[in-house]
Amino acid sequence: MTTQAPPSQQQTGAWSEVESPTSLVVRFPDNDPLEMDSGGQIAPLTIAYQTYGTLNAAKSNAVLICHALTGDQHVANVHPVTGKGGWWETMVGPGLPIDTDRYFVICSNVVGGCMGTTGPASTNPVTGLPYGLDLPVVTIRDMVRAQAKLIDYLGIDQLFCIAGGSMGGMQVLQWAAAYPDRVFTAMPIAAAARHSSQNIAFHEVGRQAIMADPSWDGGRYFEAGQRPTKGLAVARMAAHITYMSDEALHRKFGRKLQNRAAPTFSFDADFQIESYLRHQGSTFVERFDANSYLYVTRAMDYFDLAADYGGSLALAFKGTKTRFCVVSFTSDWLFPTSDSRAIVHALNAGGASVSFVEIETDKGHDAFLLDVPELISTTRGFLDAAARARGIAPAGA
Amino acid sequence: MTTQAPPSQQQTGAWSEVESPTSLVVRFPDNDPLEMDSGGQIAPLTIAYQTYGTLNAAKSNAVLICHALTGDQHVANVHPVTGKGGWWETMVGPGLPIDTDRYFVICSNVVGGCMGTTGPASTNPVTGLPYGLDLPVVTIRDMVRAQAKLIDYLGIDQLFCIAGGSMGGMQVLQWAAAYPDRVFTAMPIAAAARHSSQNIAFHEVGRQAIMADPSWDGGRYFEAGQRPTKGLAVARMAAHITYMSDEALHRKFGRKLQNRAAPTFSFDADFQIESYLRHQGSTFVERFDANSYLYVTRAMDYFDLAADYGGSLALAFKGTKTRFCVVSFTSDWLFPTSDSRAIVHALNAGGASVSFVEIETDKGHDAFLLDVPELISTTRGFLDAAARARGIAPAGA
Repeated sequence: MTTQAPPSQQQTGAWSEVESPTSLVVRFPDNDPLEMDSGGQIAPLTIAYQTYGTLNAAKSNAVLICHALTGDQHVANVHPVTGKGGWWETMVGPGLPIDTDRYFVICSNVVGGCMGTTGPASTNPVTGLPYGLDLPVVTIRDMVRAQAKLIDYLGIDQLFCIAGGSMGGMQVLQWAAAYPDRVFTAMPIAAAARHSSQNIAFHEVGRQAIMADPSWDGGRYFEAGQRPTKGLAVARMAAHITYMSDEALHRKFGRKLQNRAAPTFSFDADFQIESYLRHQGSTFVERFDANSYLYVTRAMDYFDLAADYGGSLALAFKGTKTRFCVVSFTSDWLFPTSDSRAIVHALNAGGASVSFVEIETDKGHDAFLLDVPELISTTRGFLDAAARARGIAPAGA
Repeated sequence: MTTQAPPSQQQTGAWSEVESPTSLVVRFPDNDPLEMDSGGQIAPLTIAYQTYGTLNAAKSNAVLICHALTGDQHVANVHPVTGKGGWWETMVGPGLPIDTDRYFVICSNVVGGCMGTTGPASTNPVTGLPYGLDLPVVTIRDMVRAQAKLIDYLGIDQLFCIAGGSMGGMQVLQWAAAYPDRVFTAMPIAAAARHSSQNIAFHEVGRQAIMADPSWDGGRYFEAGQRPTKGLAVARMAAHITYMSDEALHRKFGRKLQNRAAPTFSFDADFQIESYLRHQGSTFVERFDANSYLYVTRAMDYFDLAADYGGSLALAFKGTKTRFCVVSFTSDWLFPTSDSRAIVHALNAGGASVSFVEIETDKGHDAFLLDVPELISTTRGFLDAAARARGIAPAGA
């Protein structure tokens, strides 16, 4: 296997990350494919990832962070496309709860993504063209299976912690269920053990918006040198509403007008919320691939951990020694506290060690990405105690 | 003014309703325009409407029903386009709470609609072509002003009742505020005195979905003989999610698969909720005009009744003699009970007579359209008492 990026393809600008990511890269050989739930496989499989901190001699201090739908491996460094800070800089860094002076932090782009791990924009070795919809449909379990290959490659037997919010939390749960002996602690945040009907519905709207864009062209837009940016922007706008709470929208925007004293009686973005949403849509399409959006939303839709254990979520965690810390947010209506409670009930029924914190905030689902003091203090307390139990030296020791 | 439909235009199929509605029609002359909040006007103004029952000699038994975003005047008769029953057949008819044996029921298509009242698909007399975006932007107050012209035309001084849900409820509130002496009772159901930031956001997503469709063509799609059906379907799908509750979706669809035993690992409509949403999108475009969708959503966005009264909703109702019955539903997250409470507080502060009922149901916002026994009994009780007070004879008397 090689650790260098393949030669850059025709992709330019943001899309150069697909084939030449600004990341560490591991490329598994053709004879070591990713076997997938659909029965398909990906060969060769490329995984792009970032690391922070240093793996200790006992290899006991590795933390795997799993990213959400539109996140990526750039947890705590400047993003190569947007130039903005990492998506979890409140949580991961020197002296922060996921302390890079103490832990060796790993985050890989998910399979199906567009930041260097094999996804629909990657080159299909059979055709020499982007996969498009010829990439097999990806599941959360496939994403986790790929991560496990990366962790094997890094020579790590057991992860000290796996943490992630939203779809990241789904991966955390899948890891804990599939590889209980490889997970010392697990932190699923604002997550669910299965995607709800309402959430599938919102995803379907996003996918239909993309597919309705003639530029999508059955997923073969790369070849025509175009992108379904309008459809993808609409998908992002619809999804973005679900990431915020009604209260926060009211507090932040209310009915305030955008740079004007009176309504224009037109279809311009009179209201600040309209202007904000349009901005969210237009910036998103600069950094994300439309087909990846289809694949990654689909993976979430298909996630139903209990279904793999005869319908019993408790069986998924039976006898586990992993220590869990489950976190939800009061104003999260996409992955409401009831979803987290269902996880906690199953963990209790399975005899697991579990802490559960419901954090009071009006920041909605996106709270897991934001500077929420109780999230930070909860994570710090949970990991510090677990690190002592695991015998991981304090930072600077 | 004439009461006949103008000659049919090029519109065919469903769209024949725009110029030749299967309804009563009143066409106000050019010198009697609709003056609009934007400063624009519509001349001539056409209003298409349905009536049920008989106006009594005292003209005291008229009930005006105001329809919601995608509703129309076909409250209690077979719909001329879909062939389905009227949208409020649970509530309006002989022996029903809004008893057509007792009351004279009127419902008109709103200005900006597409079922015969002047809207963006109507012919612009200046060009001889459909208005498209040349129709001035419509507000809830404009809709109500047009309804008042219709009620004048019908020779009715005071309406016994004005009732409506959702956007219909906004019109009810606007009527009660603007014409307090003309409204004996008012029933705003699942409504709000102003559109929230989150609701504006969902509307903006729908509009952007329509405008992203190349077939929309700046609103001039009629001329090219095309329609932005894909964009409109996406808009409808996004909106439809907001009309249902998470609980009802879980109960009705859950994660059930559509006519298959296992997921297909594809982007087909594997889940019943996907299939249902796609159906909602594809049937909607057969009966609704995309530009009307832009206009009517915009009217809701702009609605902020208190803003017309110096920011005080109580002032809007100060000294009113109208009897109010305000209804909300526990699982309605689009127009939650808090919106109805705000109306009730303002009515109380304004010294109004008001009943308030929050109905326990998991049917979400759409509950106002459905067979919800407590809604039916509440309406019956409220109207019966008010009819006695107004001296309206019982049915058959």
